[in-house]
Formats: sequence, structure tokens, C-alpha cells
Amino acid sequence: MIEEYLSTLRLSELPQLDEAMHYALAGGKRFRARLCLAAAAAVGADPRDALPAAAALELIQAFSLVHDDLPALDDDEERRGRPTAHVAFGEAVAILAGDGLLNAAFRVVEELPSERRPAVVAELAAGVAGMIDGQYLDITADAEPSLEELRRLHRLKTGALIGAAVGCGLHVGGAGEERQRPYRAYAAEIGLLFQIVDDLLDEGADGEPSYVTSVGRRQARQLASEAHTAARARLAEADGETAELAALADQIAERTV
Amino acid sequence: MIEEYLSTLRLSELPQLDEAMHYALAGGKRFRARLCLAAAAAVGADPRDALPAAAALELIQAFSLVHDDLPALDDDEERRGRPTAHVAFGEAVAILAGDGLLNAAFRVVEELPSERRPAVVAELAAGVAGMIDGQYLDITADAEPSLEELRRLHRLKTGALIGAAVGCGLHVGGAGEERQRPYRAYAAEIGLLFQIVDDLLDEGADGEPSYVTSVGRRQARQLASEAHTAARARLAEADGETAELAALADQIAERTV
Repeated sequence: MIEEYLSTLRLSELPQLDEAMHYALAGGKRFRARLCLAAAAAVGADPRDALPAAAALELIQAFSLVHDDLPALDDDEERRGRPTAHVAFGEAVAILAGDGLLNAAFRVVEELPSERRPAVVAELAAGVAGMIDGQYLDITADAEPSLEELRRLHRLKTGALIGAAVGCGLHVGGAGEERQRPYRAYAAEIGLLFQIVDDLLDEGADGEPSYVTSVGRRQARQLASEAHTAARARLAEADGETAELAALADQIAERTV
Repeated sequence: MIEEYLSTLRLSELPQLDEAMHYALAGGKRFRARLCLAAAAAVGADPRDALPAAAALELIQAFSLVHDDLPALDDDEERRGRPTAHVAFGEAVAILAGDGLLNAAFRVVEELPSERRPAVVAELAAGVAGMIDGQYLDITADAEPSLEELRRLHRLKTGALIGAAVGCGLHVGGAGEERQRPYRAYAAEIGLLFQIVDDLLDEGADGEPSYVTSVGRRQARQLASEAHTAARARLAEADGETAELAALADQIAERTV
């Protein structure tokens, strides 16, 4: 459902730029989109109604990867099993394609009913602001940050958009602030879980700050297990049909790639 | 009024990134912001109510300059009389600051009344999409484009955001589609005027596609004069207090820096 929606989006009037943007958008696990749809369904919405918000999250995720991979930042040459955008299209086009993907996130929101849009735009923009702050902390971080610094960095870099994914779904479903609270607490836990699992799978191979290098594999596994348990506990307190969100937490805890 | 509003914006939670973003935002002529306020006033709004939209336009303009100046694009070392952002803060921070400025445009819109936001977000995002397309055409253009190609490039690269500036002001003032039409036609003419005057002042010194190199100084002056006349004619057809918008057209026509 998500892939079909994403593939039909016209991202630029210029075919070549549109192609570069779709290239960068292709191939993700769509974890943030699935979170958004599951959160909307949990509070009683038809998940189809959340598709524009889910697409916006994937556009933002793709934007951040294209820019983070640039030579001036992480200088990565491969992403999702293919050459990164700047390797495939050149650095100038990658910068523009990233900009265009971020902007397109705020365009696709037009497909939502007018009364839902302000909250979704605010949620997305707050998520992006957190992400960018996190990336700034990442590129300026000490080689060996403390556990507290690491948590702050990842709460922003990874956690902000995961929080926005859940938040957007809740807004589409029209959930009020009080009802949102346990869902947002769940999102904070799976954001942490997601990052620790990432670090465990990655083994901190490229010398980046990581839970594994910071506290060791054994304690990192313990922290992941605690976050998983806490995420499920927060869902148990939530008002709604939370089975799908619980299944997503399990998938993150069990993922091997 | 605009400067004060912009200076109080918190652009990042991180003081150093906030500083880099404000550095890039400082020192513009605020032409797009003034257009937005004048358009809002023309259709009967208090210009103060348009300040968040005007600020969003300046944030977008600053974003585009920071990214266009990057080594992979225009590779400019000076902007608004100071070192460009990547010279002052490094390329990685400049990329993130540009991303953050674009995103901040969609955050400041939250200061508008909820019912005005969807139209303003749509207007801004359409303007940014046009701008990015224009920049893509610019970096992939022939060394000597035809007059038609040049017009298309500039209608997007410069004209899209100028159109959005007028459009945002009209939305804040609650003007309907029919009432907006002559104002939008005015915006198209001053977008063209702005670019031709830019080229006349610049003398195409850096070998970029330009009206001056394309049709010569004399015909470029003639085209500028026609656009100025047409802009004033469109305003004469508009319903509202258009003196300020007319004055802005005159200022562009007469500018010398």
C-alpha cells in the first residue's frame, strides 16, 4: 500500500530530477510509514487515510539519508544496497534532490483533509528539526561520548522522526493530547530500541559513536530488552487497538538486518 | 518590523547551529517579505498578521542561498558582503543549516491562525519546488540557452518564490481565487523584472546564463521596461490598495545594487 502510493508521487516537474528523487526514495523498510499507519489504525482511523502522512515520513527519511551520505557529512558510497545518490547523480543533484524530498513531504500533506493538516505539518517539522539537531550533534560529537550524550544524540537523530511517525498517525486519527500520551511514550522507547539494535547489528564498524562501543555488547542487549519491555508496557496502558504497534516493536527487537 | 521578527526566531535548540542559521539569514533586502506584507495589506489585512508568512519566505530564501553557494553548486565564497556559510562554518554545517532553514519556514507558519495555514504551506511548498527545479535547470543548462529556456529557468528559480510571496500575502488576507488573479499576474511580471535587473547589474560576470549575454544590454533594458509597465498595468486591474506593491515594482526597476 505504501510502496504503491510512493511510486505514484510526482516529486518534480523535471523528469531527471524526479528520477533522482525516486531513486533516493526506493528500497527502505518503510518502518516510519508503517508506524504511522498502525498508530492511526490504533485510534480508530482507516489506515488508508494516513497514507499521505506516512509518505511524508518516508520522504523525510530519504531526504535525511541523501544529505547524511554526502561527502561533507558521512561520505557513504552505498545505501540500501545501491550507490548513494551523490555517487549515482553527482553531488549537486544529490543536494537538490534532498532539498526537494524534504519539501515534497510538506506538499504531500495537501492530500489530507484540511482540518488535519496543521497538526501534521507541525509534527513533521518538529521531527525534522530534532533530526537535524541530532545530525549536528553527531558530526560534532566526541569520539567517545558518555552514555547520556549518546542518548541525547539518538533521541534527536533517530527518535525525533519515529516520534513524529506515531504522532502523525494519532493526529490523522483525531486523538486528543491525553489519549496520545502512552502512544508517545511507546514511541520514545522504540526509538531507543531501534537505535540500540542498529548499533548491535552494525558493531560500530565505522568508529561512529555507538551503544556497543559505549557500554559493551552485553549491556547494550540489556538496554534493548528493557526498552522493548517498556514499549509494550506503555501500549498496554493505551486506549485503542494496539496489536499492530506491539508487533512492530517485536519486529524491531528481533530484526537481524 | 521584519528584522525584529526574524531576529527573535529560535531556529535550533542547539546554540551553535542556531547561530549558523541566523548568520545565513542576516543581511538580505527582505524583498520577498516586503512583497508578502504589501500583498496582505492590499487585500485589507493588517500586515503584522502576515509576519510569520513573510518570515517563512526569508527563511526559504536564506536556505536556497546557503545551498546554492556550496562548492558542489555555485561555489561562492562571499554573500551579502560576508563569507558564505560554508566558508564561515564548514560545508557539513552549511548543509545542515540550509536544511534547517527550509524546515523552519514550515515551523514559523504555526504562528498563523490555523485556518490560514494549509493555503500558506501549500503556497510555500509549491514555491520551493519551483525554485529547486529552476536551480536544477541552472546547473544543467547549456552555456548559451535560448531566450525561451532562460525565461523558463528564471520563472522557476527566481519567479516561483516571488509568486509565493504575493500568494502568501493574499492568503493571509483571505482573498479568493478570482481576486488573486491580477496580483498573481503582477507577481509574474516583477519576477521577470527582478531577474533582468539582476543580470543588468551583474553583467554576467561569472559566465552564468543571463539576459544580457543572451539578448544584449539594450534589449534586456527594453524587456525590463516592458515587465515594469505590465506589472503596474496588472495592479491597476486589481481590487485593493495597491500603492505599496506599485512602489515595490518601481524600486526593483530602479535598483542599482
